[in-house]
Amino acid sequence: MAFTEIGYQVADRVATVTLRRPERLNAFTLTMRAELIEAFDLADADDDVRAVVVTGAGRAFCAGADLSGGGDTFGHHGEPGERPELVNGAPRDGGGTVALRIARSLKPVIGAINGPAVGVGVTMTLPMDVRLASETARFGFVFARRGIVTEAASSWFLPRIVGIAQAMEWAATGRIFPASEALEGRLVSRVYPADELLPAAYALAREIAENTSAVSVAAVRRLMWSGLSAASPWEAHAADSRLMTELGGAPDAVEGVTAFLEKRPARFPMTVSQDLPPGVPSWPGDPYGV
Amino acid sequence: MAFTEIGYQVADRVATVTLRRPERLNAFTLTMRAELIEAFDLADADDDVRAVVVTGAGRAFCAGADLSGGGDTFGHHGEPGERPELVNGAPRDGGGTVALRIARSLKPVIGAINGPAVGVGVTMTLPMDVRLASETARFGFVFARRGIVTEAASSWFLPRIVGIAQAMEWAATGRIFPASEALEGRLVSRVYPADELLPAAYALAREIAENTSAVSVAAVRRLMWSGLSAASPWEAHAADSRLMTELGGAPDAVEGVTAFLEKRPARFPMTVSQDLPPGVPSWPGDPYGV
Amino acid sequence: MAFTEIGYQVADRVATVTLRRPERLNAFTLTMRAELIEAFDLADADDDVRAVVVTGAGRAFCAGADLSGGGDTFGHHGEPGERPELVNGAPRDGGGTVALRIARSLKPVIGAINGPAVGVGVTMTLPMDVRLASETARFGFVFARRGIVTEAASSWFLPRIVGIAQAMEWAATGRIFPASEALEGRLVSRVYPADELLPAAYALAREIAENTSAVSVAAVRRLMWSGLSAASPWEAHAADSRLMTELGGAPDAVEGVTAFLEKRPARFPMTVSQDLPPGVPSWPGDPYGV
Repeated sequence: MAFTEIGYQVADRVATVTLRRPERLNAFTLTMRAELIEAFDLADADDDVRAVVVTGAGRAFCAGADLSGGGDTFGHHGEPGERPELVNGAPRDGGGTVALRIARSLKPVIGAINGPAVGVGVTMTLPMDVRLASETARFGFVFARRGIVTEAASSWFLPRIVGIAQAMEWAATGRIFPASEALEGRLVSRVYPADELLPAAYALAREIAENTSAVSVAAVRRLMWSGLSAASPWEAHAADSRLMTELGGAPDAVEGVTAFLEKRPARFPMTVSQDLPPGVPSWPGDPYGV
Repeated sequence: MAFTEIGYQVADRVATVTLRRPERLNAFTLTMRAELIEAFDLADADDDVRAVVVTGAGRAFCAGADLSGGGDTFGHHGEPGERPELVNGAPRDGGGTVALRIARSLKPVIGAINGPAVGVGVTMTLPMDVRLASETARFGFVFARRGIVTEAASSWFLPRIVGIAQAMEWAATGRIFPASEALEGRLVSRVYPADELLPAAYALAREIAENTSAVSVAAVRRLMWSGLSAASPWEAHAADSRLMTELGGAPDAVEGVTAFLEKRPARFPMTVSQDLPPGVPSWPGDPYGV
Repeated sequence: MAFTEIGYQVADRVATVTLRRPERLNAFTLTMRAELIEAFDLADADDDVRAVVVTGAGRAFCAGADLSGGGDTFGHHGEPGERPELVNGAPRDGGGTVALRIARSLKPVIGAINGPAVGVGVTMTLPMDVRLASETARFGFVFARRGIVTEAASSWFLPRIVGIAQAMEWAATGRIFPASEALEGRLVSRVYPADELLPAAYALAREIAENTSAVSVAAVRRLMWSGLSAASPWEAHAADSRLMTELGGAPDAVEGVTAFLEKRPARFPMTVSQDLPPGVPSWPGDPYGV
């Protein structure tokens, strides 16, 4: 698979997805959309990938939708020439297809936001598990300044991440804000000097890869995100009771407990591609077929 | 419309709603309830209003329900002499009718909490988008100290704004707490010296008015609050895909993108009264008919 | 009722539940599970109990599941010899039965986390209202390090308490973290020197007991937690309107308002065992019958 607008590399059990149109500040296009979805399919299918780091080439993370089409840019979303993908009779928002693909990832996803992340450039990061930022990052939910709306399902993600008051302040003003305001508002977990950002992202990825069962992490990721949309804790109880039954006696649990008792690192034998138990929630199933 | 217990003024594209019973610390009455609902109807219908600021006259924001009726004050809620408004066979809580009207506002709402905000005086602020406070503000979810319960749908709003642990601590103790504790607990976004509170509220309102499409902000406000109650991000995706289709090629989007490319301020032509697209969520529709 | 693995004492209107297997760092067993559920039944039924404090004997809070069964520990969850308690065809997760019992408590619950709280030792605290910690506390959602999953309905509770980004970072790494990180991430409300932890927990319990109506607090607790799982604020409005009707004219409300107007402490006459109104939500009803 040759990508043209992103990079995709696997090393040390971590996949790095790089938004790669640096001459355009990595502005989002339909090609980038398709390649991002494909990259997450690759990561999910590759047992050598324990976590995914997403970052931008050059000085930006992603400047938002590519506006080179001019004033009518947002008049033709949906991919031309493709089988129509309709939801409620309307073409599906492209940023949303990426965001919802990331939401379903079986591997934890770490955003390493190295520069401006604006419009879809920031909303695509909301379904990532952890956002880390460089001191040079800037953010903007600028949609109301362009005459459009918060997209990529961000009206679901953003108020759950930063609270409705912070979400509305950023979305109603459309302001551009620095990494410090993103940290204060809990949009990002930590801010680093520029040259420490990727090392921090990889350190976190390694902490996951070196200590945990891949099957457990995949199951936990789906449990947690679906738990955030579950109607009650009783639903979560049903889901985790089932997984405890499916995994409690399985090889990874035997190894995990035994290694702990023997005070040695665990060597988990199970793989996501072969051993994911049926109880892992599909969260929530994509009714639109991406 | 002559109001007797609130003030309502529009200037510089901002409506100011002032709770105005200063001799009673702006205590809440059935008249105030009706006037507040009417004021938000006016603001929604007036295209010259881009944001609403709510504050109190005199030294208080709102001291809560007017208790001059004595011990039986809460024995007769619901408006006497009016067509009964029943929900589940019970009269509708008055604070709730105000809170839910504010929740449905098409204009962003900024609470400028200038003094004590207690009981319904604080729960009515929860569906506002941003709460700013004076250093002289005090807060109290005092219901359990009066033998009643958290009302105005605050059991939905409060734990989503401040988290369930903070919500329960305030609601179970009924304690009165200062602005600093409200800030620490994220009930308010920022605290100002008394004479800087209203200027800060108006500066935020102006930031919205001067930079954004009114139609976009109305749509975003409904998307975001309904997103907070949506069952899954797939619902949000359906809603924002529809709005991107309806608004992506509309005049405000053309102007917004063109102005950005020309590096000039946008002059958005669309109005909330005429151009709100059908995809704007009714969030969630008021099944009780207010 | 003689407990063997917990302590249960009532003093000054506060029940203290002590996890009591100090030689095993209070590791969780099926016996402890049954005794914890019983203790919360006692507290709910005893009008002399206005709040519950949960803490650990010795230097730990709870080290998690007792792993003395070795590698197959999690292969046999569910209580042997008992009537099967199945959910979705699987034995119910034991931690979940405790967590959901605490969630339904009619009395506010304060976790006083005095030392390590790991695995079910921390997930059982999530449905408590407020978590206070000692500087010597440590925390770990270590499930993925043992080859199992986040249990005790924590996929519902945790992201609502600390946000999904923090929840996923802790759950995907399985790391052990100190009280300071728990405070920064809002898992606990405050951290105290070891000898000030229990006094702080009791002071908070007393603040509730001395100032509020027990019936109000029970109703508020159920309203607030069910509000967190309510689909919309309109549901919360229906629930609190009903309770305002049931309680607004009742003796506690009359006393609460009268005492306030007379500037004296209230003496609330109603009791949870006798006077809980029918509108108190059952939140959400336990469909599995615990």
